Amino acid sequence: MGDNLFDAIDEKIHAKARLGIMSLLTVQGECDFGTLKQELQLTEGNLGNHIRVLENAGYIQVTKTFTGKRPKTLCSATELGIQAFRDYIEQLERIIRMTQLPKS
Amino acid sequence: MGDNLFDAIDEKIHAKARLGIMSLLTVQGECDFGTLKQELQLTEGNLGNHIRVLENAGYIQVTKTFTGKRPKTLCSATELGIQAFRDYIEQLERIIRMTQLPKS
Repeated sequence: MGDNLFDAIDEKIHAKARLGIMSLLTVQGECDFGTLKQELQLTEGNLGNHIRVLENAGYIQVTKTFTGKRPKTLCSATELGIQAFRDYIEQLERIIRMTQLPKS
Repeated sequence: MGDNLFDAIDEKIHAKARLGIMSLLTVQGECDFGTLKQELQLTEGNLGNHIRVLENAGYIQVTKTFTGKRPKTLCSATELGIQAFRDYIEQLERIIRMTQLPKS
């Protein structure tokens, strides 16, 4: 087993809520704050904190717009974020494969 | 997407170090403290804390033995732990499949 199989897991994505955000943004392209909040059943403050971590990492982009007069916060994954998410998923797949080896 | 796809991730296993411990115990059957420490590159205190979380969850069993006069701490996954780990891996696989759907 490689020494860094688990160490190489990207903590910025690994937290449950951030894994949820990155998964949704990867599948849906972009999401507004309200949709993320509802889909992931997070409080506003909690979601805001996780979004900030991902934004600071350069993994997502946050844009403030309006729908009519209602403000809307749109999130989308950046190229860096999409690549980091792909790497993260590959890392999980490596771990899953490792755990499915027969006992030696 | 199911509402609870991410919520259903078992936090007791999800933390990087504990995922490492459970993976190693699943693959190798049982491990002593020193091997876990070395393989996962954790400090003694850190490894001890994670082992306690897993032991309190009923996921692993910790046995103190001796090799000659040297004390040895052996860890092995319980049936509950093996099942919880299997469920955890299935949950990851569900998430991975979800992220690989084409955009709708």
